[in-house]
Amino acid sequence: MPTKVRSKSKPKPKKNPPPKSLSSNGVHSKKSSSAKPRYIYYFGDGKADGTAEMKNLLGGKGANLAEMTNIGLPVPPGFTITTEVCTYYYDNKHTYPKNLFEKDIPAAMARLEKSVGKKFGDPKNPLLVSVRSGARASMPGMMDTILNLGLNDETVEGLATLTNNPRFAWDCYRRFVQMYGDVVLGLKPANKKDIDPFEAIIEAKKHQRGVEHDTDLTTDDLKDLVSQFKRAIKERAGKEFPTNPFEQLRGAISAVFDSWNNERAIVYRRLNNIPASWGTACNIQAMAFGNLGESSGTGVAFTRDPATGENVFYGEYLMNAQGEDVVAGIRTPLKISELQKQNPAIYAQLEKIRKTLEKHFRDMMDIEFTIENGKLYMLQCRVGKRTGFAAIKIALDMKDERLISEKEALLRIEPEQLNQLLRPVFDANEKKEAIAKGRFMAKGLNAGPGAASGKVYFNAVDAEAASQRGERVILVRIETSPEDIRGMQAADGILTARGGMTSHAALVARQIGKVCVAGCGDLEIHYDQSAMTVRGKSFRIKEGDFISIDGTTGEVFEGEIKTKDSEVLQVLLKKTLKPEQSEIYQMYARVMQWADKYRKLKLRTNADQPDQAQTALLFGAEGIGLCRSEHMFFIEDRIDRVRQMILANTEEERRAALKEILPYQRVDYYNIFKAMNGFPVTIRLLDPPLHEFLPKEPRAQSLLAEKLHKTVEEIAERVESLQELNPMLGFRGCRLGILYPEITEMQVRAIMEAACNAAKDGIKVFPEIMIPLVADVKELQHQAEIIRTVSENVFAEKGRRVAYLIGTMIEVPRAALLSSEIAPVADFYSFGTNDLTQMTLGLSRDDSNRFLPAYLEKDIYPRDPFEAIDRAGVGKLMKIASEEGRKVKPKLKLGICGEHGGETSSVEFCHQLGFDYVSCSPFRVPIARLAAARAALKS
Amino acid sequence: MPTKVRSKSKPKPKKNPPPKSLSSNGVHSKKSSSAKPRYIYYFGDGKADGTAEMKNLLGGKGANLAEMTNIGLPVPPGFTITTEVCTYYYDNKHTYPKNLFEKDIPAAMARLEKSVGKKFGDPKNPLLVSVRSGARASMPGMMDTILNLGLNDETVEGLATLTNNPRFAWDCYRRFVQMYGDVVLGLKPANKKDIDPFEAIIEAKKHQRGVEHDTDLTTDDLKDLVSQFKRAIKERAGKEFPTNPFEQLRGAISAVFDSWNNERAIVYRRLNNIPASWGTACNIQAMAFGNLGESSGTGVAFTRDPATGENVFYGEYLMNAQGEDVVAGIRTPLKISELQKQNPAIYAQLEKIRKTLEKHFRDMMDIEFTIENGKLYMLQCRVGKRTGFAAIKIALDMKDERLISEKEALLRIEPEQLNQLLRPVFDANEKKEAIAKGRFMAKGLNAGPGAASGKVYFNAVDAEAASQRGERVILVRIETSPEDIRGMQAADGILTARGGMTSHAALVARQIGKVCVAGCGDLEIHYDQSAMTVRGKSFRIKEGDFISIDGTTGEVFEGEIKTKDSEVLQVLLKKTLKPEQSEIYQMYARVMQWADKYRKLKLRTNADQPDQAQTALLFGAEGIGLCRSEHMFFIEDRIDRVRQMILANTEEERRAALKEILPYQRVDYYNIFKAMNGFPVTIRLLDPPLHEFLPKEPRAQSLLAEKLHKTVEEIAERVESLQELNPMLGFRGCRLGILYPEITEMQVRAIMEAACNAAKDGIKVFPEIMIPLVADVKELQHQAEIIRTVSENVFAEKGRRVAYLIGTMIEVPRAALLSSEIAPVADFYSFGTNDLTQMTLGLSRDDSNRFLPAYLEKDIYPRDPFEAIDRAGVGKLMKIASEEGRKVKPKLKLGICGEHGGETSSVEFCHQLGFDYVSCSPFRVPIARLAAARAALKS
Repeated sequence: MPTKVRSKSKPKPKKNPPPKSLSSNGVHSKKSSSAKPRYIYYFGDGKADGTAEMKNLLGGKGANLAEMTNIGLPVPPGFTITTEVCTYYYDNKHTYPKNLFEKDIPAAMARLEKSVGKKFGDPKNPLLVSVRSGARASMPGMMDTILNLGLNDETVEGLATLTNNPRFAWDCYRRFVQMYGDVVLGLKPANKKDIDPFEAIIEAKKHQRGVEHDTDLTTDDLKDLVSQFKRAIKERAGKEFPTNPFEQLRGAISAVFDSWNNERAIVYRRLNNIPASWGTACNIQAMAFGNLGESSGTGVAFTRDPATGENVFYGEYLMNAQGEDVVAGIRTPLKISELQKQNPAIYAQLEKIRKTLEKHFRDMMDIEFTIENGKLYMLQCRVGKRTGFAAIKIALDMKDERLISEKEALLRIEPEQLNQLLRPVFDANEKKEAIAKGRFMAKGLNAGPGAASGKVYFNAVDAEAASQRGERVILVRIETSPEDIRGMQAADGILTARGGMTSHAALVARQIGKVCVAGCGDLEIHYDQSAMTVRGKSFRIKEGDFISIDGTTGEVFEGEIKTKDSEVLQVLLKKTLKPEQSEIYQMYARVMQWADKYRKLKLRTNADQPDQAQTALLFGAEGIGLCRSEHMFFIEDRIDRVRQMILANTEEERRAALKEILPYQRVDYYNIFKAMNGFPVTIRLLDPPLHEFLPKEPRAQSLLAEKLHKTVEEIAERVESLQELNPMLGFRGCRLGILYPEITEMQVRAIMEAACNAAKDGIKVFPEIMIPLVADVKELQHQAEIIRTVSENVFAEKGRRVAYLIGTMIEVPRAALLSSEIAPVADFYSFGTNDLTQMTLGLSRDDSNRFLPAYLEKDIYPRDPFEAIDRAGVGKLMKIASEEGRKVKPKLKLGICGEHGGETSSVEFCHQLGFDYVSCSPFRVPIARLAAARAALKS
Repeated sequence: MPTKVRSKSKPKPKKNPPPKSLSSNGVHSKKSSSAKPRYIYYFGDGKADGTAEMKNLLGGKGANLAEMTNIGLPVPPGFTITTEVCTYYYDNKHTYPKNLFEKDIPAAMARLEKSVGKKFGDPKNPLLVSVRSGARASMPGMMDTILNLGLNDETVEGLATLTNNPRFAWDCYRRFVQMYGDVVLGLKPANKKDIDPFEAIIEAKKHQRGVEHDTDLTTDDLKDLVSQFKRAIKERAGKEFPTNPFEQLRGAISAVFDSWNNERAIVYRRLNNIPASWGTACNIQAMAFGNLGESSGTGVAFTRDPATGENVFYGEYLMNAQGEDVVAGIRTPLKISELQKQNPAIYAQLEKIRKTLEKHFRDMMDIEFTIENGKLYMLQCRVGKRTGFAAIKIALDMKDERLISEKEALLRIEPEQLNQLLRPVFDANEKKEAIAKGRFMAKGLNAGPGAASGKVYFNAVDAEAASQRGERVILVRIETSPEDIRGMQAADGILTARGGMTSHAALVARQIGKVCVAGCGDLEIHYDQSAMTVRGKSFRIKEGDFISIDGTTGEVFEGEIKTKDSEVLQVLLKKTLKPEQSEIYQMYARVMQWADKYRKLKLRTNADQPDQAQTALLFGAEGIGLCRSEHMFFIEDRIDRVRQMILANTEEERRAALKEILPYQRVDYYNIFKAMNGFPVTIRLLDPPLHEFLPKEPRAQSLLAEKLHKTVEEIAERVESLQELNPMLGFRGCRLGILYPEITEMQVRAIMEAACNAAKDGIKVFPEIMIPLVADVKELQHQAEIIRTVSENVFAEKGRRVAYLIGTMIEVPRAALLSSEIAPVADFYSFGTNDLTQMTLGLSRDDSNRFLPAYLEKDIYPRDPFEAIDRAGVGKLMKIASEEGRKVKPKLKLGICGEHGGETSSVEFCHQLGFDYVSCSPFRVPIARLAAARAALKS
């Protein structure tokens, strides 16, 4: 039964008959129809049913266990229950395919028993197994795992005898009952603040026995704990702890499948764009024990350094421990290099495996291993998570090592990872000063590069709330856990006191690209006081105080430190650094050079001011895709003229005010043309509703009244009368230029005079005038006629012609639908996907925060449609507009200027639609360049 | 040159080269390509080049002049320049096809000269012609006309000699110069308040000569007027009055084409949905003179009574007058029956022609004739405008007379005309009392049926403004003119002092369906005092005072009189009238009976209360298509519970409040089911944003705070926090039910409990639950799951099942685009075309008043998209949704519940898309029934 589905929204259907036209969960709509599919894939004894290619079916873990088995690595045998069983489970009200538990699993277990020579439930020689989740994409720590399954009051004795280690056997049993109670029977505390009932029992026991560590407990203590645990289970879950191993197994498998839909898995999937429909596989594997004594141990490692990308074996291990102990960060593990001293044979074997894996998988791998009585077992291998920096370095290095090609190297770098090269760093002088002033607090692991400064919060909930209030936030935790993921996402930086480079905090921070310092052991964090101190120092940081962390060095400082440009930008701006001085810059430049070789899309930027344009050029922009001409209206002197224009009572008054705005606009445009010499500049005519330019405050209104020699009442009344119920759908865009053609006339005159002046000064100008909010071809015709007339007049006056284009935003659904009518009149389309999304989805961006997060959690939308283009809806309109437009005008220039223009998957979509360019904010240009190249390589 | 294009928006292009990708006027895009088209169609001597079928090419007037010639009626010869020339003129910067003026027109004039035995410009025997516009659809008085063309200082003498009537000749010349100066040379005053320069000269002359009437002026006076007129033209227009008749002709033809785009023509086209692309033809016809003395005259007539539809010859004439004198309403004409006494032969000839025309055209015709020296000439015939009442009566009568079939009869009745049968009438007792109290003021002509009561305004501008303020308005004018059309449209009723049943006021009122009393001769209207008095009585009505007019009887009353239900409704409600007592009801019933025979669409109504449902049933509704369940929330006791629910801080609090709302909703639904016994009821779940239910006023907020035991600050803060920037695209519709499933649960429980209770009481219930604002199938699935679960629970509790449907509004563009995904989950779609229009066009209905009227005037949208479905944009989405939905679910039920559901052309569109039903407000049901039948007959 689904005891662990936490989603509050899903009403549990009671006794209702199968819905007529509705699949119980539309997400899992794949039907296993015709031939009975194979649900179980075995691996062991050097041969596996599956391969690494079968990730969709076996999950990442299952597929790679199979692959490792096939290439001869020492893997404990086991079998994988496919993701299709999970899909079936959700499609069929939490039931299983016929015969799965009756035939298929017992058969696989029999094979497993034969392989290891033990028997499941045999009191003499018991087989114990682990039951682990494993989805197509890695979701570390999000789903559930049960170890040591198969133990009960009888088999525990067998294990004790067999290992000649009763304490070990009872510790295993204690752990199993606790884990099973937690995971399968739902005794896990509902939130972090509640105490875990099992931990409470252990604490009481330790107190009673007067000992400090778990390890100080005796076998009898453990026996007592087991029986106390069972009582707690009986009391709280209302059922007995199951003693039948097959019953245990079935419970554990269901818990794994249920955990696919626990809250943190849902959040994780949303953050990582993993569809709910994929489901997880479930791996049942013979246990290998790392906690069998000092000749046993367990570890995790990366085939290269996941933080820096350096080609060194990198990892951590603990002797006499089970795997979870390393990842959970409870004991601080040893560096893998220590193992070389402690057990050279095993280390050599691992080094060899490291090479084998990299050669075989042609990527940096993340492995888990266990040593049982001196024998090495591989428990997992997967492509390793890495920082953006490491991803880039590894891709470039592997290309140089001829492991991968140039194209593959590009496909290995997620465009967003470039961000980490572009991320701000601390101002060196400020940092020096901080050190000089004694503000250096401590040093931890450099787990997520970049520099961040913000207010300290000690729990995820408060961090998230503060971030929503607009504060910069550093989340500080002793250690993080999957429950903290939203707070981590919201924070600017993450700082933990415990855990290594493979701890939860480090792993997640690397993946979501957060600045992170992990395992900063000198920190003493006092949750109860909402404060932290530093061992041996006098710092005391309270909630809300500022600290600064450097994720590239691991340093932590008291107070705020100013951040400054990344090395890349410092080189580009020819400031302090020369290209040869910065390895980071060189990596950046190499990636960009390769990307430019393959991409088909041109890159433009959204820039309203010459300095923005300049920055974008340095980042590789090849034009401006959106210059919001009205953004210049707000500069001091101008705003009063603009307001005078808006408040005009007659066309004459309006024209008089416009005449005074004209020179300002002309200079603005001239400077933009100058900055973009040789590149096209798309200028959007006035777009926002006029009331946006008027003061709302009574004081500001009275000041304005004075300036314009009007009464305050008149101003107030006008402001009031210009208010709209739904300004998004109101009097804006080309509607303004159609009712007040004189505004369009002024803007076009300013553009063309500036263009002629610039051309005269030897600047190459390519103005592209863009009409916003067009919904009908007649609007475009109306404005185009003004543009042509005014342009011809200016050309005649200036005695000089300038080539220009006239185009339109496609941001109203109707325009997309009527593309075949609009295209003949337009030289280009630029998709305004922000507004197009709002109108197509009926979703006000400004108002959606009350329900959109819930929608994402419930998987109603797979991603935030304002972040990545909603391909199903908005994308369909874009497709219609592009195809029908190009049908009537094959050379129609297509671009995008919505904020999606800098987002990876949206860039890919634009490539697929055959766009000419994407336009995005200056700092997104490198990311979009890489995204464009990857899109071209993928297609 | 286009001297008369008034549209301010259109910048005159100066010297600019032909735009590259833009036709200069997208409206006139038809190109006269291949073979040279024929531009001139001659008629005369019993034979014509054209026929009545060629209205698109020759305009209505030209086609019917040809037809009348062909069927042997006495028509002065002439020729028609086709509408294609007008199209060419606008497509080619106001130029004409090659050879038109060089060859084609001279050739036609030569033929005309031969036919009448006179010569154009011959000083001895001059041919004079009229130049008249004539579009495909009648646009009475909207465009320009020039009479007596061909006169100059020489030919006037010839005319004098020829007619032996110098005064007549000079009067003709005076009229011609005046008309030409007005129409061709643009001396017409810009607005009604300015004085006409020619009228000023005449007034001065009369004053100088001490006479009262124009007719008292001598030949010499007229000669002096002509020379004064010419001087005025020279001074004001800066050019000489042209003496060359061919030059006159060219000027007059251009003026006719230019008048196609004058402001009043544009407004008229918009009101009557006539596309700007049609253009007008131009008719040149030999003059027949009705002002040649007492044996001459002119008249207009209808073959039946256009107000009542009675089968009697109905018209007016004036002896010794030109045609315009009758229509302009300056002299009050005589009834046509008088002609029988005055000239029995001519009357008999006209009676015969009346019969011939009705038999030939199979419709009621509107004719113009002139008697020149005792000889009858037919100048025009066209299908006669009529009141809705007359249209219905004529259609029914002609069916009985076997002139037309039942189907044709239905096609003769515009659905909107039914409105006139359903229009309110004065309460008989109130009216009696008004008479008893001496409030009866005067009686005029019953020009537009129905009763109206409102405040008096004496000019169109003020009337329009008052109407926009929400006042009921009676527009009172001495006579109306085309400039008044917007004021007439805005008014509830129109009252004029002069003019007959064929005056401008009467004509327009009939066409746009306004209550109108015309030619109320006892009224003395004093524009200068903004007041009116009644001849011989002591009434004095000032601007803003109430009057009441009865357009069915022609009566005018002081003050307000309550209106009451139409006869149809009185019969339907079984109130005061029995069916056999009301001819109106019988007509209504017959039309409805025929309509129901042919229509394919089912008819539903939008009703939130049982009484509305009842009314709709009487009007023929076959179900409820939209029951806005939240409309019942506002009823007294409930609103506080609703507010408590909205202000709840926890789910528990919310559930507690919902529990108290449940019984109210259950009763509401029960009563609706009871009213609609046997018919389906579509209930939409909660849709509006929650803040709509909260009080905005501080006082109301503090009252609420008291009731709910909360602080005012808390309430105010909550109201504030629920405000949205774009509520149309905000937290509403199914988004509410998804975030607060308990609301959906309560509503569904109430619906299903009510349904079960009703079924138990023997009522046949068919609930159809509708989810609003769906944009993704997962939203629908989420809500559908709740609906099914709750329903099953209720059925189990009640021990009774009720069949029900689950469907969705299609009102978000994305839902239409993703129809193939949504349809499998929906039993029905109901198109919410109000919101679909807002989102597809990016057009907030509440905010569009600042620019939408201008858009309609500029013909950017052919019709108000909130009135008639925008087929190009919204219609395309509806088509996609319908087709793709039916593809995956052929039996998907389709309907519409937007306000378009009661609008004729939208109903037709729904029929074309294969909808199952349309739903509209109760009073629109009969109109939609007829519209549905006509749509079926047309397809």
